[in-house]
Amino acid sequence: MRAGDMLYEGKAKQLFLTEDPGVVRVKYKDTATAFNGEKRAVLEGKGEMNNRISTFFFRYLNEHGIPNHFIDAISPLEQLVRKVDIIPLEVVVRNIAAGTLSKRTGLPEGTELRHPVVELYYKDDALGDPLINEDHVSVLQLATEEQLKEMREMALKVNDLLKQLMEQEKILLVDFKLEFGVDAEGKLLLADEISPDTCRFWDAKTGEKLDKDRFRRDLGQVVEAYREIWTRLGGKKDV
Amino acid sequence: MRAGDMLYEGKAKQLFLTEDPGVVRVKYKDTATAFNGEKRAVLEGKGEMNNRISTFFFRYLNEHGIPNHFIDAISPLEQLVRKVDIIPLEVVVRNIAAGTLSKRTGLPEGTELRHPVVELYYKDDALGDPLINEDHVSVLQLATEEQLKEMREMALKVNDLLKQLMEQEKILLVDFKLEFGVDAEGKLLLADEISPDTCRFWDAKTGEKLDKDRFRRDLGQVVEAYREIWTRLGGKKDV
Repeated sequence: MRAGDMLYEGKAKQLFLTEDPGVVRVKYKDTATAFNGEKRAVLEGKGEMNNRISTFFFRYLNEHGIPNHFIDAISPLEQLVRKVDIIPLEVVVRNIAAGTLSKRTGLPEGTELRHPVVELYYKDDALGDPLINEDHVSVLQLATEEQLKEMREMALKVNDLLKQLMEQEKILLVDFKLEFGVDAEGKLLLADEISPDTCRFWDAKTGEKLDKDRFRRDLGQVVEAYREIWTRLGGKKDV
Repeated sequence: MRAGDMLYEGKAKQLFLTEDPGVVRVKYKDTATAFNGEKRAVLEGKGEMNNRISTFFFRYLNEHGIPNHFIDAISPLEQLVRKVDIIPLEVVVRNIAAGTLSKRTGLPEGTELRHPVVELYYKDDALGDPLINEDHVSVLQLATEEQLKEMREMALKVNDLLKQLMEQEKILLVDFKLEFGVDAEGKLLLADEISPDTCRFWDAKTGEKLDKDRFRRDLGQVVEAYREIWTRLGGKKDV
């Protein structure tokens, strides 16, 4: 394989090789999927919004000491990121009950949690990305005990940082999903994306959903909601 | 309520008040249920076997320093136990992949696990007894951090003790479910039952299932298998 070749195509992004073996080019797609790929659509402009918002969050987290894969945004749809081996776990942090947490525990959507909840999901489409616990992670050898500890600590720190940031923009950070990877030196880095595709954002005043739930639940105005997030974060500047 | 009144009727047992407010009489039933109560049958002799086997295990664990609710067996179907408030968690310990662990993780049934796996399920029929993690337990206030730690330690100790005991009888302890309760003094006690209804036992030589999976999977000879467990444990003596 050589520079420009596609390394991987996911549901919402494509990854391409670059001249530098330690660097990958990410291209955000307009494709939206939900329910383990059962629901699909093309939402024009979503890719650009997610690239811009994700870029903003990764820069912000970098400035606040969260080691992550982001290098630079190079076009409205593209970023350069460090090449990592993704740990096949979705690390979810929740502040307010919604979605599967409400289904699992019976806590009504909107219930403020006494403290943040961290959940681990096994990234495996065939199994439907099931919730697992730390013993499962260890038996499946998905991550070391040290990596688990580090991911949990980083996830909770990201939560504090993003919650604070979004509160200033009158947005509630309900929950979000992180993925981590390990670079060639074995260093754990926050990876993937942070966007309305991977977070739940509610308008603090009206409770309006400004995230992928608009797509999941057929609420319409999906890209408009993503653009609202981008605008409140001070968007319109070029990335 | 007074002595003799039924305090509670579960799927497999009835609980009655006694003259002593700290003591409850448990009566084992012949009813078998599976899949959250969707499958039901009456299996003559099951109640007696479970009472005898559970009595045997609780005595054995008592002798080996595991504090539990068992006081004495008083008839072929009945035990006296300490009254506890049950913590609404099923604590499952697994040594070999089977059942929902295989479904969740893709590990084929029979895969020996690198180390025991402890799982927590939220005892809630309406929610289908979902798997949860320690953050969920804390947010739902189902148990304290100290109780969680104690339950995990006790569950792993019970696993060591039962595994060793069953190996002597050429039986593999695949997995089992425990429940815990808190007595009037706030002491955490192992409670409920330990029987082929709540454990997976496989014949070490033939792999034959000697537990409730015979009922779940329509393999027949359910009570005969329970009796086989009882016989190997040295049964036929009066309880």
